[in-house]
Amino acid sequence: MRDLLIASTSTVHGSGYLEYLFDELELLFKDCNEILFIPYARPGGVSYDEYTTIANSAFKKIGKKVKGIHEFKDLQNAISNAKGIFTGGGNTFVLVNQLYRNNVLASLQNAIENGTPYLGTSAGSNICGLTMNTTNDMPIIYPPSFKTLGIVPFNINPHYLDPDPKSKHMGETRETRIKEFHAFNTQPVIGLREGSWIEVKGENIKLRGDLNARIFEYKKEPYELTTNNDLFFLK
Amino acid sequence: MRDLLIASTSTVHGSGYLEYLFDELELLFKDCNEILFIPYARPGGVSYDEYTTIANSAFKKIGKKVKGIHEFKDLQNAISNAKGIFTGGGNTFVLVNQLYRNNVLASLQNAIENGTPYLGTSAGSNICGLTMNTTNDMPIIYPPSFKTLGIVPFNINPHYLDPDPKSKHMGETRETRIKEFHAFNTQPVIGLREGSWIEVKGENIKLRGDLNARIFEYKKEPYELTTNNDLFFLK
Repeated sequence: MRDLLIASTSTVHGSGYLEYLFDELELLFKDCNEILFIPYARPGGVSYDEYTTIANSAFKKIGKKVKGIHEFKDLQNAISNAKGIFTGGGNTFVLVNQLYRNNVLASLQNAIENGTPYLGTSAGSNICGLTMNTTNDMPIIYPPSFKTLGIVPFNINPHYLDPDPKSKHMGETRETRIKEFHAFNTQPVIGLREGSWIEVKGENIKLRGDLNARIFEYKKEPYELTTNNDLFFLK
Repeated sequence: MRDLLIASTSTVHGSGYLEYLFDELELLFKDCNEILFIPYARPGGVSYDEYTTIANSAFKKIGKKVKGIHEFKDLQNAISNAKGIFTGGGNTFVLVNQLYRNNVLASLQNAIENGTPYLGTSAGSNICGLTMNTTNDMPIIYPPSFKTLGIVPFNINPHYLDPDPKSKHMGETRETRIKEFHAFNTQPVIGLREGSWIEVKGENIKLRGDLNARIFEYKKEPYELTTNNDLFFLK
């Protein structure tokens, strides 16, 4: 049975790395002591080792060990043998590029579909959608494709931000950007605010956390979805 | 002699489309009555016709006519025969994708290098840099490449925004994003604030407008460059 936590962000303002999710993570990873970490998104350009140390320090607080995928020789095996997987945030272009170059997308998809517990934050959440076309990240690398895992039948926009009515900046708001996406694509998009996550248990997909989410469907006005509601209708 | 105005934005807050640039545009386009408009970036998903109407209304105020490139059968000819060219803003991925699909990048580069006056705003400015890797836009379409015209020997970040010290949002600041770019790329980036533009006259490249710009060089701390200064050192 699929078992995922797809979070908007690793960190909410004023709290430590992953801290707001600790209760959930104890449940998600209850049957595994060692979690396989995918550090490919390299936030701020940090090395795989540095990033793995950060993830390890956080999981230590709930009694878990973290091992970076770069410490393994056979990457496909590392994924299929993992008891739990965490893909951290950073730059989605860098992450997706590395997943393609290392030829691990299919293994990751199989492991998740076969029930390996999975945590994604930010870029690590983006890849659970159909494509990475709705990332907020800067395209600092050209990946072989924008197609991602398609664990959920829609696209994700993490760190969703409401328009600021007082802003004098002329750059596009997040809402405008996602509307532009729908001038060229038809799949729905969930705008996931910081502190929200998507819980996938088998065929059930639910919005979790304290906040509502903003839903963008093709040729419809965007609307709010209340937390703890099903997302099964969104496809 | 190359003659370009590469602007951060088409519109500054509280003013009409292109209005803050009218004096400059009268000079840039003094020898041409009809300007070729490239509407491919389609802001908000508008049609080429709608976008061309917007550009035409603005240029009418300084006595110029605008014709969309989509009104021509032979696109390469339209570009090489143009007396002046304007590429408007919108989504850089959509713009670059269409320039590649229609096979007009080389013609555009030739026309500009041969002295056809060129105005770019936002996405239309991004393409004057070496690559589009430092756009702020959402990757709503997968273009064949991120390589762009390379009229200037650096990358451009239009609509540059300073970090907001009061923000509680955990998404990356613009400065962090450009620093991440330099974890994977070495060319300099100019953060061009709204109201600033780059003036290219032959081999001379200058920062113009009332504001300073933020310069990001590989393995250096970012710094401010005062307006009206040369940019020839940036490569």
